[in-house]
Amino acid sequence: MKVSVVKIGGNLIEDDADLEQALNNFAQLEGLKILVHGGGKLATQLAQKMGIKTKMIQGRRVTDAQTLEIITMVYGGLVGKTIVSKLQAKQCNAISLSGADLNSIQSLKRPVKEHDFGFVGDISKVNAQSFTTLLNAQITPVCCAITHDGNGQLLNTNADTIASEIAIALSSEYEVALYYCFEKKGVLRNVLDENSVITDIDPSSYKNLIAQGIIADGMLPKLHNCFHALENKVQHVYVGSIAMLANQDEIKTTLHLNQYN
Amino acid sequence: MKVSVVKIGGNLIEDDADLEQALNNFAQLEGLKILVHGGGKLATQLAQKMGIKTKMIQGRRVTDAQTLEIITMVYGGLVGKTIVSKLQAKQCNAISLSGADLNSIQSLKRPVKEHDFGFVGDISKVNAQSFTTLLNAQITPVCCAITHDGNGQLLNTNADTIASEIAIALSSEYEVALYYCFEKKGVLRNVLDENSVITDIDPSSYKNLIAQGIIADGMLPKLHNCFHALENKVQHVYVGSIAMLANQDEIKTTLHLNQYN
Repeated sequence: MKVSVVKIGGNLIEDDADLEQALNNFAQLEGLKILVHGGGKLATQLAQKMGIKTKMIQGRRVTDAQTLEIITMVYGGLVGKTIVSKLQAKQCNAISLSGADLNSIQSLKRPVKEHDFGFVGDISKVNAQSFTTLLNAQITPVCCAITHDGNGQLLNTNADTIASEIAIALSSEYEVALYYCFEKKGVLRNVLDENSVITDIDPSSYKNLIAQGIIADGMLPKLHNCFHALENKVQHVYVGSIAMLANQDEIKTTLHLNQYN
Repeated sequence: MKVSVVKIGGNLIEDDADLEQALNNFAQLEGLKILVHGGGKLATQLAQKMGIKTKMIQGRRVTDAQTLEIITMVYGGLVGKTIVSKLQAKQCNAISLSGADLNSIQSLKRPVKEHDFGFVGDISKVNAQSFTTLLNAQITPVCCAITHDGNGQLLNTNADTIASEIAIALSSEYEVALYYCFEKKGVLRNVLDENSVITDIDPSSYKNLIAQGIIADGMLPKLHNCFHALENKVQHVYVGSIAMLANQDEIKTTLHLNQYN
């Protein structure tokens, strides 16, 4: 049996028309499926409205207690419930989850070493049975970027990582396709040229692209998650626009564990 | 098979120690169970922080688009996910739901007559199967005061009403006990005397208590929901403190459909 795990990025969520199109494509995807979403700039916007300053260390957000509350409200509440109500209108029987719901994803609070990132969780266990129970009942899980430590503490966790870890946990029971959807058509050779999509990346070309500085910044952790998934038995991994959900022949980046060409 | 449907009021949610005690008692309740919660003053507090004014008509909150966003963040996100993470720590396998999740509760936007209350929904259908699917998998639903219209619109709905309508929908398949938990030990004869609990109310004494002005204000809709549930085959309805969940002999108000004594 096949399962599609689809991550949609923050930029797709912030724009109503983009979100509508993304959910249309997702709803039409055949077979069992799981949606994973972040919250993008909506959390930062709410923090600003409330007069809470975003603290950054080395370009990464620090999740203090107030920020965790905001993330729980925005990702777990506003974004999750809005997506689910829209999917229900498209006849997709969705349910929004944090990692605490059904104990679906447990994590450990990141230890304080050089820096204290606050209430950030590194995933310790994806409870595959939580997902199979829902999938077997024809229910579509919609997961936000929140996990928990099992002792009553919610934790902020990267949505790309959540998507890859769910895909890995399900790959022993299902054939899993992992889709990272964002505003580009795939990994670009030239960030200024939307049509410079690199259609296939294998571990050897991955190294070269990093060495050349073509894969850099935010694409580095995303592609790390892609290869981590492939190395842990996820069968298919793609990076591209939401159009790839609707059209198999759409231009996109396909990741390969073994040498390609 | 028995199911307990437990509504916990806003005042219990606002205080950390009260919430902890309420969830301890709820987690220890034997058998299948469902928790329904409001969000109390937390939504009003967030609106204030964001500089949004609460509009009231005849003492009732108007749910404009901004207020609906706040309710979705606070009830659906912060309160729901916090409760679930705490219940998981107590070995209760909970999942937080809005009416959109699993299409569990559909409603109709209240028609504009004399007043426009905005995005408020009157329940049209509780999807009993959504709840039985979860209950049969030993999962405990935690429901917030949000429903949806089936066309992608979330709606604000009274939590007491949600509790009674869920109880009614399940009463054809289960023996249902409906518990309304709040900060008092039951319906009081004298609001200034905590020990003046009226232990039993039947339709005849209900009428008399209203006529005498003993049941008034917020207790009127609550007791209306109680009798509505009894009239629609819910087997047991109680009003009292969270202590009644832990101790069967605790003083509380028991509602009766037939004349009592």
